[in-house]
Amino acid sequence: MSTTPDQAFINNQTGIAHQAESRGPAGDSRQRLHISYSRLRQASKRICAPLEIEDYGIQTMPDVSPPKWHLAHTSWFFETFLLKPFLPEYREFHPLYSQLFNSYYNSIGEYHPRPERGFLSRPTVEQVYAYRSHVDEHMQHLINSVNDEHWQDVLTRTQLGINHEQQHQELMLTDIKHIFACNPLRPKYRNTGLGTPHVPDEATNTLPSTVKWFDYQAKLTHQGYDTTGDTTETIATTDTTTAAGFHYDNETPSHPILIRDFKVASRLVNNQEMISFIEDGGYKNASLWLSDAWQTVSEQQWLAPLYWEKHDDEWWYMTLSGMQVVDPLAPVCHVSYYEADAVARWAGKRLLTEQEWEHIAKPLPITGNFRESDLFQPAPPSALTTDSGATHSGSMHSGPTQIYGDVWEWTRSSYTSYPGFDQSAFSDFSGEYNAKFMSNQMVLRGGSCVTPRSHIRPTYRNFFYPTDRWQFSGFRLAEDA
Amino acid sequence: MSTTPDQAFINNQTGIAHQAESRGPAGDSRQRLHISYSRLRQASKRICAPLEIEDYGIQTMPDVSPPKWHLAHTSWFFETFLLKPFLPEYREFHPLYSQLFNSYYNSIGEYHPRPERGFLSRPTVEQVYAYRSHVDEHMQHLINSVNDEHWQDVLTRTQLGINHEQQHQELMLTDIKHIFACNPLRPKYRNTGLGTPHVPDEATNTLPSTVKWFDYQAKLTHQGYDTTGDTTETIATTDTTTAAGFHYDNETPSHPILIRDFKVASRLVNNQEMISFIEDGGYKNASLWLSDAWQTVSEQQWLAPLYWEKHDDEWWYMTLSGMQVVDPLAPVCHVSYYEADAVARWAGKRLLTEQEWEHIAKPLPITGNFRESDLFQPAPPSALTTDSGATHSGSMHSGPTQIYGDVWEWTRSSYTSYPGFDQSAFSDFSGEYNAKFMSNQMVLRGGSCVTPRSHIRPTYRNFFYPTDRWQFSGFRLAEDA
Amino acid sequence: MSTTPDQAFINNQTGIAHQAESRGPAGDSRQRLHISYSRLRQASKRICAPLEIEDYGIQTMPDVSPPKWHLAHTSWFFETFLLKPFLPEYREFHPLYSQLFNSYYNSIGEYHPRPERGFLSRPTVEQVYAYRSHVDEHMQHLINSVNDEHWQDVLTRTQLGINHEQQHQELMLTDIKHIFACNPLRPKYRNTGLGTPHVPDEATNTLPSTVKWFDYQAKLTHQGYDTTGDTTETIATTDTTTAAGFHYDNETPSHPILIRDFKVASRLVNNQEMISFIEDGGYKNASLWLSDAWQTVSEQQWLAPLYWEKHDDEWWYMTLSGMQVVDPLAPVCHVSYYEADAVARWAGKRLLTEQEWEHIAKPLPITGNFRESDLFQPAPPSALTTDSGATHSGSMHSGPTQIYGDVWEWTRSSYTSYPGFDQSAFSDFSGEYNAKFMSNQMVLRGGSCVTPRSHIRPTYRNFFYPTDRWQFSGFRLAEDA
Amino acid sequence: MSTTPDQAFINNQTGIAHQAESRGPAGDSRQRLHISYSRLRQASKRICAPLEIEDYGIQTMPDVSPPKWHLAHTSWFFETFLLKPFLPEYREFHPLYSQLFNSYYNSIGEYHPRPERGFLSRPTVEQVYAYRSHVDEHMQHLINSVNDEHWQDVLTRTQLGINHEQQHQELMLTDIKHIFACNPLRPKYRNTGLGTPHVPDEATNTLPSTVKWFDYQAKLTHQGYDTTGDTTETIATTDTTTAAGFHYDNETPSHPILIRDFKVASRLVNNQEMISFIEDGGYKNASLWLSDAWQTVSEQQWLAPLYWEKHDDEWWYMTLSGMQVVDPLAPVCHVSYYEADAVARWAGKRLLTEQEWEHIAKPLPITGNFRESDLFQPAPPSALTTDSGATHSGSMHSGPTQIYGDVWEWTRSSYTSYPGFDQSAFSDFSGEYNAKFMSNQMVLRGGSCVTPRSHIRPTYRNFFYPTDRWQFSGFRLAEDA
Repeated sequence: MSTTPDQAFINNQTGIAHQAESRGPAGDSRQRLHISYSRLRQASKRICAPLEIEDYGIQTMPDVSPPKWHLAHTSWFFETFLLKPFLPEYREFHPLYSQLFNSYYNSIGEYHPRPERGFLSRPTVEQVYAYRSHVDEHMQHLINSVNDEHWQDVLTRTQLGINHEQQHQELMLTDIKHIFACNPLRPKYRNTGLGTPHVPDEATNTLPSTVKWFDYQAKLTHQGYDTTGDTTETIATTDTTTAAGFHYDNETPSHPILIRDFKVASRLVNNQEMISFIEDGGYKNASLWLSDAWQTVSEQQWLAPLYWEKHDDEWWYMTLSGMQVVDPLAPVCHVSYYEADAVARWAGKRLLTEQEWEHIAKPLPITGNFRESDLFQPAPPSALTTDSGATHSGSMHSGPTQIYGDVWEWTRSSYTSYPGFDQSAFSDFSGEYNAKFMSNQMVLRGGSCVTPRSHIRPTYRNFFYPTDRWQFSGFRLAEDA
Repeated sequence: MSTTPDQAFINNQTGIAHQAESRGPAGDSRQRLHISYSRLRQASKRICAPLEIEDYGIQTMPDVSPPKWHLAHTSWFFETFLLKPFLPEYREFHPLYSQLFNSYYNSIGEYHPRPERGFLSRPTVEQVYAYRSHVDEHMQHLINSVNDEHWQDVLTRTQLGINHEQQHQELMLTDIKHIFACNPLRPKYRNTGLGTPHVPDEATNTLPSTVKWFDYQAKLTHQGYDTTGDTTETIATTDTTTAAGFHYDNETPSHPILIRDFKVASRLVNNQEMISFIEDGGYKNASLWLSDAWQTVSEQQWLAPLYWEKHDDEWWYMTLSGMQVVDPLAPVCHVSYYEADAVARWAGKRLLTEQEWEHIAKPLPITGNFRESDLFQPAPPSALTTDSGATHSGSMHSGPTQIYGDVWEWTRSSYTSYPGFDQSAFSDFSGEYNAKFMSNQMVLRGGSCVTPRSHIRPTYRNFFYPTDRWQFSGFRLAEDA
Repeated sequence: MSTTPDQAFINNQTGIAHQAESRGPAGDSRQRLHISYSRLRQASKRICAPLEIEDYGIQTMPDVSPPKWHLAHTSWFFETFLLKPFLPEYREFHPLYSQLFNSYYNSIGEYHPRPERGFLSRPTVEQVYAYRSHVDEHMQHLINSVNDEHWQDVLTRTQLGINHEQQHQELMLTDIKHIFACNPLRPKYRNTGLGTPHVPDEATNTLPSTVKWFDYQAKLTHQGYDTTGDTTETIATTDTTTAAGFHYDNETPSHPILIRDFKVASRLVNNQEMISFIEDGGYKNASLWLSDAWQTVSEQQWLAPLYWEKHDDEWWYMTLSGMQVVDPLAPVCHVSYYEADAVARWAGKRLLTEQEWEHIAKPLPITGNFRESDLFQPAPPSALTTDSGATHSGSMHSGPTQIYGDVWEWTRSSYTSYPGFDQSAFSDFSGEYNAKFMSNQMVLRGGSCVTPRSHIRPTYRNFFYPTDRWQFSGFRLAEDA
Repeated sequence: MSTTPDQAFINNQTGIAHQAESRGPAGDSRQRLHISYSRLRQASKRICAPLEIEDYGIQTMPDVSPPKWHLAHTSWFFETFLLKPFLPEYREFHPLYSQLFNSYYNSIGEYHPRPERGFLSRPTVEQVYAYRSHVDEHMQHLINSVNDEHWQDVLTRTQLGINHEQQHQELMLTDIKHIFACNPLRPKYRNTGLGTPHVPDEATNTLPSTVKWFDYQAKLTHQGYDTTGDTTETIATTDTTTAAGFHYDNETPSHPILIRDFKVASRLVNNQEMISFIEDGGYKNASLWLSDAWQTVSEQQWLAPLYWEKHDDEWWYMTLSGMQVVDPLAPVCHVSYYEADAVARWAGKRLLTEQEWEHIAKPLPITGNFRESDLFQPAPPSALTTDSGATHSGSMHSGPTQIYGDVWEWTRSSYTSYPGFDQSAFSDFSGEYNAKFMSNQMVLRGGSCVTPRSHIRPTYRNFFYPTDRWQFSGFRLAEDA
């Protein structure tokens, strides 16, 4: 293994995967990449299977993109960053798609305004699927035919494209939920889902006591993705669609950090606790809210998490399986950073830093309520997850549950670059992928019930604005020791 | 004929049709109404025939409604004002449609916010057509079965519903044009249309001289729809879908007016003249614009009529047949009142009052470039229209052309009620149909190339805000004698 | 008298005064003009006498201008349209004032943005008064020295400047009221004012019956200022500051109109009636409001007229004499057109047209609660006004009261040009004075309690947007006969 | 010294000063506090001395407060947190001032909306000064008479009030600059100021080479104010107005941090470098800007720092001494975080973290171009500052210059709480002082040319939104070693 090309790549590329075979791919490397790519693309189709044609084109707010747009944009990504540069004979599917389906890459050229993605009845859904097929055929050809010189580039860019589309698969589900929730008919995306809520046993009233607190000791440790150990083949042969060793640039470089003594809750904050906050007047009490938060609460007239409605003194929420009674034991979801911060303050606690979260997560197995659980909504700890660290390294590990999956956990850390991160201009797709968003957003960790399990890592950093609520976002309490 | 019920109706109903047979309908009256209704409903379907399913749900600005919404709303109108009150056994198609497809009738109840009509992927297009079929079946049943006591009500309300849907047919075409024009792909609604532009003969340079001026003498006359002569059967047996005698409440009462001496141009202002205005710096010259207009021009950065684009020093515009080179001899279209007023001032002329327009129009035959011409865009005078008064009452009539059809003509008259018009509360659908909009809007007259010919009358008053441009709106010059 | 110059002037000048002496001014003409000018300028100072320096600079909304700005702008008017063109040796007071104190005259050049008039702490109040003195000295010099050739121009422009400043005197009082009302300290502009409210005798409950209705017969008459009779000297020698014969361009030309039979209320709608409207849920009842009005009511959350506050179940309002209990018998004031229209609809009546108002007003003497009454708020009919037509033409005239003064009366007429009015470009100050505002506004008539009596005429047209409430505006009911 | 009360205070109070004499104040402690208080209050008056009465009331944007408001608000602070709780017989000056001059303390009650501070012509300037005198008299009485039990509270709260008013003194100068810059007359606050610009010697072209780079080695050190050494008397006897040992809660607790190897520029980025950025198209190049930054640049149409204007190809800027030619060697000022970040990226460098800045600053003497320099604008390194560490601990210290004073330095650190900081509700003035603003803002360090020298510390944290430009804010370059 030569480290120098890798290091160069860290500075130049957004999606980073170590590749041992610098001398060129064996046939089964091509084969494995092709399988990963195909699985990915089929998964996007499967996600859209329950949709009517009419559902593909709706944009209910600027943050939401129509499902059709997601399908086309992810294909545009492969077309733009793989097919055009590496497949000489490639002809683009349509000359205007480059503009229509570019999201925000200034270095690529003009792009259609984000708030107007819902104005495009054309191309039709059928045409978008044809575009996808066109790209898929040529991607297959590229993977099979690319020569040794470009194999590494094609491999790493394809892996980035795969991870990119996984992100959009999650967004498709998030956005479909918003689209359906804005419709007074409250359509169901699917007919299955969690059944009756998990009503706590009021007699024993054990609910609040179900939180345990785990102690963590002060420690000098590392944060971020460590690239030094990546010596194995990058294309997994397992059921995951992504490569071992893949990570984004914003997870690097690995760097030393100081962890202080702290305690963390054994599970996520749940709906019953959120209801207590509401009933205690939390949304009306300025002293619980950051100054900017209070302005948002007042202007937006927030009274409960997004998608919650009260009918006959009972709280309901919209799910991808339609309207349901709020499950008191399920993790609270669709809250902003501001709400997470206010509830923590109300409880006399605080949120985790992303350093603390990563420190907790690193020894734990990556299991939880992911998209593969086929629930598409967060679940009470008992529903799916066993103790997250149940059998770690062959022995019982006592640790917090729900670290992975269910909901993205808001941390109290602003999204910014790690020390030593390259600061150069956002002049190619790598700089435009993650780095140019490093202001005004907060870090979330751990993935959600609509994240593919293979997409997540302990070092994975998600980021949203502190006002955002349409993601599957929740939080966990912590406190200083 | 008894005048009293008619008079009562004038005070209570928006759409007004005189009906001689106060004692009940003969079988062929029912039959004629049924034919009118069926033709209307089929016409709406035909308008949508070229659409893809994806085109049905788009809303590109608050003024625009998705075609699907138009189809459902017009059915809701029959359901709400005919089927529910007059067909006892009628069960509504869906309990929430009353809210989803109510446009603005406060007296009916809550309605879905106008700017969010494009958020509704459901009901699907198929479901909306099923809704239409459901309503059609029951309307047929109602027309066939209503008893003598309610016949007159059902007749007049159905006629109102027919005229209402005709208005929405025009809006569908207007809105589809906007939807397609917002799409960088510039889709074609249809493949036919006007051919090559009508280039003026520069050698003879005859274009500006083609305007003639007609003199009108001062006169004490009447304005408004005169109900006193309505003694005939209301359901036409011709190819029109509406009844002789139908009119809206805002056209009444007929009342005396004074007309002063004035001159009027023989044709509409055309694109070549508009280009002269542009090239003379008209859009940059504050002294040509009303104060509010200048603010709009500055804020919206208007540089030409809506849908105009300059490519390689040539003006193009969007049409329902796609992008075309601007036809210099065709009437200018998609201009606001502000632009019409400014161009008139630039030309040293003025716009007509609605009184003057009606005075000109009354003796002329209702012929012109209407929807039935199948052009769907305004045409040069020579293209379709002969002298509009060509053979009027058996003899040659010399008068302005293009009075009817092509484009709605902006007048300089504010939209307000006629003297003697009922001022009572907007507490039923009649008051909410036309009267509650009597502020801040300007009157337009004469219909356009997407108006059904049978929909128009010399007394017909259309109205839009002075900033509106997405309608097929143009103007004609006049001056004091 | 030669009519031709007059006619020319009608086409060129905004303020129009007939002048018999076309051959040049006698010394006492100069003297009379000087007296008028001096009285005007002193009146502006008197209006500002109760102000603290701090009050001069505040702008509480874009419609409001700081008193200091009014003082400077009115001087700028004389400087720009009199001194610069007619006094060759004149040097402007400050090179930037032309930009700072131009209100909206595009033909003069750039102007400071209206919403930022409150950002100008400099020039100081002292400097503005110095500016005024500078202008006054040179105006005196101009009036004394202008030669025969320019005398007529100077005379008519000075008269326009005088009327212009009178308008701004009214606006100063209107704006000071708004400034003080926005201050939680609710300062008093003056310590005098109307005393205890005029409580109706509840035992006899005679209040609502105090309205009488006057009948007017249909008639062919004239509207607008008739210039044909102006043969007398234009400069009054009375206590008025303006000339007989002065009028604005928008009052011309006089033209024939048709008046229909109608009835009109003997007095203005009063506060007790407004309270009844409020208590009847008028502000909550969509069926009473025009569509645009209802949107405004909802967005602005109007619950009562501007400046009204409820304390312990009692209505209070802000006056220029501080907070007072609402006087039930005083005319309602500070209502928008939308509110006037809604109350009329609630009462089963309508507003007057401006034609009707002028027809009523022409035979009545111009008396009423004007600025000279020194009340600065509207008063009950008994307080000041005798029957308005008390002694008309030497005999008792029975007619409506409060036609002049108290409050500007909203009419149901849009502000537009009269037939025959010049439509040319707004390329000089005359076109920019009144004509470029002829869209989207409604006509008000009759002057208010802060209008100088000499400023008003039966043909005088004021105009504001239908949402405006900070003027002293009220209304009177009418109905069709 | 007892540490426990101190520790308790750290948790309860915003402004924190250690006080050795827990048993009560000696007479000269009272005397020293009185002197500090008096000097502070006189300084505020001196700052306002050049103002006209008209200047006191203007608010040119929501961020700006009128000088009068600053004068009253700082008095309100003493009245609310000292006089009312500790001086039993105290009667408030005016019952409504509590609402008018509360800035944002929800726990105190309602407050006047921030954007409407410029609407208050009353109280007058004279009344505000009377309010100040009233408060001053009672503060003197309180300081002289408070008993031993409350002395410590009064002392620490008064010190907080002093520091609070110092912050507002800086804001007054900042806001006056904005007010005068918005006025086309560009008034001068003062007539002195820096003279002719420091033009670099083009022949030797030495300017860019004047930056030296200082290396700092990786280190485990501490950040934040260390309270353990505070054992001395808190009231300084020097010419500073504040106490040794004073600090804000947001500077605590002191905590261990890791510093990595880095290099830092010897001086601030200067105007010549900013001009190079401009001329290189920096404001037009999306690849240099964070995503949110680019949106701001586009919407606000930024082309240069705030207050810069180009006249005849020469850059000028507004200063408190009026318009001046831009001094190429003076530090760039009035730039946002976004601009600082973009220029750093353009230069291939980065900004400092606040940890790095504090690490650099701690050994350096607190000298620089502060308010006491009487320049009121940033100056070139040679103008005032010698090598900042010139004589540190008696020996020459080589280190960066301009660390203190001139301009607040934007760091790349988000403003958030230090580990171990109390997270409880913002339910008293301490929590509302600093902590509730811990979102969406960036940290700035080092004070500016309008900061009182005694106000600043190496641990002092200022914070503003990344879009803010009206502060005296600049930046310094750094890079990874």
